[in-house]
Amino acid sequence: MESPNTNQEKAGVLGRAWEHVKALPEVLRKKVWGICKMSKEVAQDDPRRVIHSLKVGLAISLVSLFYYYQPLYENFGLSAMWAVMTVVVVFEYTVGATLGKGLNRTMATLAAGALGVGAHYLASLSGETGEPILIGFFVFVQAAIASFIRFFPKVKTRYDYGILVFILTFSLISVSGFRDDEVLEMAHKRLSTIFIGGSACVMISIFVCPVWAGEEFHYSIAEKLEILGDFLEAFVDEYFTTSKEGDSKDNKSFLEGHKSILNSKSSEEALANFARWEPGHGKFKFRHPWSQYLKIGALSRQCAYRMEALKELLNSNTQGSPEIHCTIQELCSEMSLESSKALKKLVVSIRTMTMASSADIHIANSKAALKSLKSLLQSNLWKETDLFSLVQPVTVASLLIDIVECTEEIADSVNVLASIVDFDVEDADEKSPKTSQSPNSECAKNDNNPHVVILIEEPVLSDCGKTTSDQHK
Amino acid sequence: MESPNTNQEKAGVLGRAWEHVKALPEVLRKKVWGICKMSKEVAQDDPRRVIHSLKVGLAISLVSLFYYYQPLYENFGLSAMWAVMTVVVVFEYTVGATLGKGLNRTMATLAAGALGVGAHYLASLSGETGEPILIGFFVFVQAAIASFIRFFPKVKTRYDYGILVFILTFSLISVSGFRDDEVLEMAHKRLSTIFIGGSACVMISIFVCPVWAGEEFHYSIAEKLEILGDFLEAFVDEYFTTSKEGDSKDNKSFLEGHKSILNSKSSEEALANFARWEPGHGKFKFRHPWSQYLKIGALSRQCAYRMEALKELLNSNTQGSPEIHCTIQELCSEMSLESSKALKKLVVSIRTMTMASSADIHIANSKAALKSLKSLLQSNLWKETDLFSLVQPVTVASLLIDIVECTEEIADSVNVLASIVDFDVEDADEKSPKTSQSPNSECAKNDNNPHVVILIEEPVLSDCGKTTSDQHK
Repeated sequence: MESPNTNQEKAGVLGRAWEHVKALPEVLRKKVWGICKMSKEVAQDDPRRVIHSLKVGLAISLVSLFYYYQPLYENFGLSAMWAVMTVVVVFEYTVGATLGKGLNRTMATLAAGALGVGAHYLASLSGETGEPILIGFFVFVQAAIASFIRFFPKVKTRYDYGILVFILTFSLISVSGFRDDEVLEMAHKRLSTIFIGGSACVMISIFVCPVWAGEEFHYSIAEKLEILGDFLEAFVDEYFTTSKEGDSKDNKSFLEGHKSILNSKSSEEALANFARWEPGHGKFKFRHPWSQYLKIGALSRQCAYRMEALKELLNSNTQGSPEIHCTIQELCSEMSLESSKALKKLVVSIRTMTMASSADIHIANSKAALKSLKSLLQSNLWKETDLFSLVQPVTVASLLIDIVECTEEIADSVNVLASIVDFDVEDADEKSPKTSQSPNSECAKNDNNPHVVILIEEPVLSDCGKTTSDQHK
Repeated sequence: MESPNTNQEKAGVLGRAWEHVKALPEVLRKKVWGICKMSKEVAQDDPRRVIHSLKVGLAISLVSLFYYYQPLYENFGLSAMWAVMTVVVVFEYTVGATLGKGLNRTMATLAAGALGVGAHYLASLSGETGEPILIGFFVFVQAAIASFIRFFPKVKTRYDYGILVFILTFSLISVSGFRDDEVLEMAHKRLSTIFIGGSACVMISIFVCPVWAGEEFHYSIAEKLEILGDFLEAFVDEYFTTSKEGDSKDNKSFLEGHKSILNSKSSEEALANFARWEPGHGKFKFRHPWSQYLKIGALSRQCAYRMEALKELLNSNTQGSPEIHCTIQELCSEMSLESSKALKKLVVSIRTMTMASSADIHIANSKAALKSLKSLLQSNLWKETDLFSLVQPVTVASLLIDIVECTEEIADSVNVLASIVDFDVEDADEKSPKTSQSPNSECAKNDNNPHVVILIEEPVLSDCGKTTSDQHK
């Protein structure tokens, strides 16, 4: 009775195995397809990544010429390997990161080479038995101290790689010196090949389609302010408008945009750090005030935290009464939209590096709206309503007030930046690409009166709900 | 007439130079003193850093034995250098990071070594003139493709270092192969020395005072919840109590604590990533659910964002009327303190890895207080007050409601974690260290009735302002 069963089982196992084999090309095809799609996405996301990859290939190929050509090889021999190694390790995406790593590596090799040769000399004085012990002791002490220094916060941010190379070079030179008496020549060869590799990296990263960390940082800050502006616009749409299918989808993505800002601290600090290594380029001088950008970044995070709290209110179940909603709508919208416009002016101002005087007007407008809102809240219109239906609108208003104040601080910091860097006085507004301006903003502009918004206080209790949505479509 | 002047000038320059020289020891002394102080701080902050530094020294000294002992040196020769190099580069602070780097380096060397030997073989088929061209082409293509792959997000987080070593090894082996015909031997030596260096690192990092990334991650999450709990306690003290000099200083530091959570995303992800490489240790198994910790971390950041908004209200000028302040105080304090207690129970539960059923009671209490607060807000007590004086208290209440809801989500996630990891059923409360419990909480505990707080609704409008401050001193 068993044999048919086992036969069947065998057939089953074979059948399944065969199916796996048959499915293999399909699985493989899907995997390859997935990788191709991912590659396309990564490349489309930032085409400079492809260029960077080609640059790395070019740099390594160039440096490996040392091996192919006899005269070059005769000079350096096997040490030419260090040049290849340096290129692989030092070449980074941005010029600043490459320069920072290259300089760290060169300086650390220089310092550790000198110390290593000294340690070797000292140890060789102590006779044949003492030498390995003394060298071992030196290596241990140097590695322990240097590893400890890596924990210093200031060192960690800027010189971490340098310390690593220091430990490496000191250990290699003092230890190899024990076997190879031409320590000086070895140190010299290591230093010069590292110098060659490092300068090849730096040259290629500067002169072939450079990606400047400073420029990246500059535009990333502008982008962040734009995201904040978009959020405020989308929030007004979402909160003060009866939802329409088509619009709300776009708004949802704008309402998520600020999430990328929440966790931007570490990437910003890295960029600022790389940017500090870079020489002057384009509109950026050597000692460009990158710390001011960090301040603007920190403020935009502050703003994003409030927005996160605000967005949470949209999702919560406790809806305020439509009546109150409607009453504060006009002024809240005004405040948000003016702040949003101010942010977008600042974006243009940063991108074009020109003064944007009109941002101040929008800030003044939003502050005026804030004042009106406060006085509206102090009025006696509210006696009839129960407090609970006030909770959500009042919280929204309160958070918006915070955000408007934060926007003002951002505008101040951008103005400080503009005055330090000496932005062109030519008005940024003229360079501004066509933005979808609401009739409201045009009115404010025509009057050129920062307090124009106080006029709006009148129709506050008239029919509402649609008016604002029409204004900023 | 000139000579006295120049003499004077000379004397002046010399004098100043002499002063600089005289000041030099003082300046140097200060610098050295500063470094010593900094070292002491870094070491006191986490004494394991000193141990780590000594471990690195030990590992490098051990591996450099290859050079000192003749039999070992005969086997590997100059390649022994790779072992030293591997130790310097691979040894990291936590076991997980060291293991991750070591495995990445070994696997990448293996793969790239095989491919490099293959490339060398292919190139050598094409004759003397074709060989360098073909090798150059291979190196270029592999470096470009591998550099591009480094941009893939998934690869970047886990295998970035592996790809770097892949490029390095492939280039070195295929390029060196052009000069040195013993390519196979070279590849073999590189692989085995890297293996030796890597395993020395891993052994030392596991067996000598190990620092487990998983354990760090586990306790860091508990610490975060504790910070959130401290904030809520301190907030109640600060906001609902007339300020006393001594207390407020402590509170200020608690009110700043959540800032460390705001930007914790990248460090948490790094720790989770390292932890995944680690074998089972202590209470943590190999496939410990680290992603659940990431979820708790994300929720605690959500909570911290609200707290940031809440803290901003404390600093703002718009103070609410003391009357309303006083009215909602009782319930807001109740809500916050119960949430704080729940968080602290969860902290103990995570730290001891035991179930904490009492956290649920506190959560239920805070939810009951939330309900009472809502019904209080719906009552008709508010008709007499103007809205503006309501803004701040209502916003505080609203944000606190958000925070309480967030705390609930955190408790749920911790419970999920407890059920996945199978926390001990033994009650965590017994293991809890003596925490400063308010009389209020004791009452809630004695009754063991989650709805006890509803009783408090009665004295809401009685004398207040001092009672709460006394309750949780």
